[in-house]
Amino acid sequence: MRPAFSKNIAGMSGNMIREILKLTQQPEVISFAGGMPPVDAFPVDALREISEMVFDKYKGGIFQYGTSEGFLPLREFIVTWMAEKGVKTELDEVLITSGAQQGIDLMAKAFLNSGDGVVIEKPTYLAAIQIFSLYGAEFVYGDADEQGFVPQSLRRAAGEKNCKLLYLVSNFQNPTGITLAGERRQELADLLSELEMVLIEDDPYGDLRYSGDNIKPVKSYDRENRAVYLGSFSKIISPGLRVGFAVGPKEIVGKLVVGKQLSDVHTSNLTQAIIYEFCAQGLIKPHIESLKLHYRKKCDLMLELMSVHFPPTATWARPEGGLFIWVQLPEGTVATELFKEAIKEKVVFIPGGSFFAGGGGANTLRLNFSNATEGQIEEGIIRLGKVMNKFMA
Amino acid sequence: MRPAFSKNIAGMSGNMIREILKLTQQPEVISFAGGMPPVDAFPVDALREISEMVFDKYKGGIFQYGTSEGFLPLREFIVTWMAEKGVKTELDEVLITSGAQQGIDLMAKAFLNSGDGVVIEKPTYLAAIQIFSLYGAEFVYGDADEQGFVPQSLRRAAGEKNCKLLYLVSNFQNPTGITLAGERRQELADLLSELEMVLIEDDPYGDLRYSGDNIKPVKSYDRENRAVYLGSFSKIISPGLRVGFAVGPKEIVGKLVVGKQLSDVHTSNLTQAIIYEFCAQGLIKPHIESLKLHYRKKCDLMLELMSVHFPPTATWARPEGGLFIWVQLPEGTVATELFKEAIKEKVVFIPGGSFFAGGGGANTLRLNFSNATEGQIEEGIIRLGKVMNKFMA
Repeated sequence: MRPAFSKNIAGMSGNMIREILKLTQQPEVISFAGGMPPVDAFPVDALREISEMVFDKYKGGIFQYGTSEGFLPLREFIVTWMAEKGVKTELDEVLITSGAQQGIDLMAKAFLNSGDGVVIEKPTYLAAIQIFSLYGAEFVYGDADEQGFVPQSLRRAAGEKNCKLLYLVSNFQNPTGITLAGERRQELADLLSELEMVLIEDDPYGDLRYSGDNIKPVKSYDRENRAVYLGSFSKIISPGLRVGFAVGPKEIVGKLVVGKQLSDVHTSNLTQAIIYEFCAQGLIKPHIESLKLHYRKKCDLMLELMSVHFPPTATWARPEGGLFIWVQLPEGTVATELFKEAIKEKVVFIPGGSFFAGGGGANTLRLNFSNATEGQIEEGIIRLGKVMNKFMA
Repeated sequence: MRPAFSKNIAGMSGNMIREILKLTQQPEVISFAGGMPPVDAFPVDALREISEMVFDKYKGGIFQYGTSEGFLPLREFIVTWMAEKGVKTELDEVLITSGAQQGIDLMAKAFLNSGDGVVIEKPTYLAAIQIFSLYGAEFVYGDADEQGFVPQSLRRAAGEKNCKLLYLVSNFQNPTGITLAGERRQELADLLSELEMVLIEDDPYGDLRYSGDNIKPVKSYDRENRAVYLGSFSKIISPGLRVGFAVGPKEIVGKLVVGKQLSDVHTSNLTQAIIYEFCAQGLIKPHIESLKLHYRKKCDLMLELMSVHFPPTATWARPEGGLFIWVQLPEGTVATELFKEAIKEKVVFIPGGSFFAGGGGANTLRLNFSNATEGQIEEGIIRLGKVMNKFMA
């Protein structure tokens, strides 16, 4: 049989990053590819105790159908959690999602007709590019520099195609690690109103800041309520539990709830309750502090080793947080070819071209520092440095 | 702000059934509305023990990202589970979903372009109608009688519009309770090949048979591999854990995996592992047997009380399994009006019109017998009988 797939999915195969991740499950391969926490960073004992408490406290109710909006105590917690980030929100503006990625999918479902434009950065989060493509979106690229998205470029971009949505990772962007500068955030929020656009502010990494001052979300400047903020517990508790949230105007959240009802009905009550109790018991903040110490140390180590072992023509910036270091190789260097040499030496990364919708970025690559051990970082950067020196000679 | 929502979601508000379910959370209201297990039917102690075992056995790994295809041991279990149902399948034909409903959504995402036709029964599962609508589907109605879908009607239906998909609930259909007759299943499977159509066989209730013989899924007759079978643990373990599965040709499952990656990445590992261990420890079959005893008793009780208290002009068939009794009122009786009277007497049901895409069925209603206690069934049917007798006098 040759099934007649929908036109948007027909040409799509698996996400290249997830395919690379499968490769890296071979032993001895040192992977800087994924964006995963290391297994030893999960608060397993605490989560185990919390889950026992959840069974005691909620009993059979936790196994029943829940509301599509999400587990009420967790939604209430999100209201206070956002308030601490400078975002005033109300209960009916909060939806619990099965990871922040589902928030992107639900926003696409709520807004996009085939052919509509979406403004994105180049490069940006690969799965977001793919999700929008699956709804038939066309891309318009705003400008970005080392201070992040350039607000005034939205003026030009919004005029092209039928652009309703702007998608940004505001803190420690994936893949570049760049953070949208504080002074640009108010300006951007004001422009949303002027241009009648909706911002998807994706912020899975914002709590993982290793240097510099915290910056309030764009959403906190959003007086006309035109931004939907997507948060996640994947990077600060566990990705395997699949719990995130969306915070936005209730009119939009109402449509996200319709989409949620019609995709997975609701996120698992058990995982929502575990996340809630972990937060409510006051375990989340000390856990984030310990993750920050842990990741900062790995980030520093990787940067230090890179400056020793990488060829001088490779350049990168020190990220202030998040999980990634973004490397620029000289023009003409092809990172996918470098990848083939690196896998022979059992060290892998993500070639940066994947993050460029519409092409480009062949000479870039993304390194993750959270998942490997310090020993693996040391050995892996030495291996990769050798491969790079040979490849780029 | 007036956001420009996508054309398919713009007119859609919450699912009527879930809105009714919110109403029924008032105390004293006896609800025959939902399709929920009763809270006391959940194997809470066993699930608690299983979850402790999951923490011991899988440790931190359970909190890490998993593959989009699903938790490997659970996928392997599904292969044997399907074999017992007469369906030979292989590992790469199995995808774990966040409930069977996600399987419908992913099938729609994989196949439907806006304007494509989907063949459905009238009436059929409300959320399926809404999911297909969200992808811009148009509906073509096959014929159905007390033996279920009439295979030869697919010949006519498939010719209308660009129909690629046929959606059926093959056992104890929601809302009618009707089961597709065994002798029609081979014929239907053969027609799929002839007409180059793909069947979505949604079977959340198939394990809950109270009388008659088990019938093998349509999928078991599907020699050319044109059917995707959707199964669920919602009705036989817990809906709140949100675990279901899709089994189909690997070419189709490959596209479902792409859609899954781009909607929620993967289903929670913890809930998948809990479901797996519950099954692997041999707890699933005795639990299904106990549910069948429990639900059969409630079904019999409700039917007996209905025959005493309902007006003689109301008719219904005895379902052989599942969760619902489908009631026909005389032509011209409007069940949504009856509903308004019933809620005053604190008893609720689902007016059947919701299940008819494109209108119709105003004189029908759906009663659920699984969720209420025996005492509530007794009191509720007496109340509803009084309301009906008065309303229909």
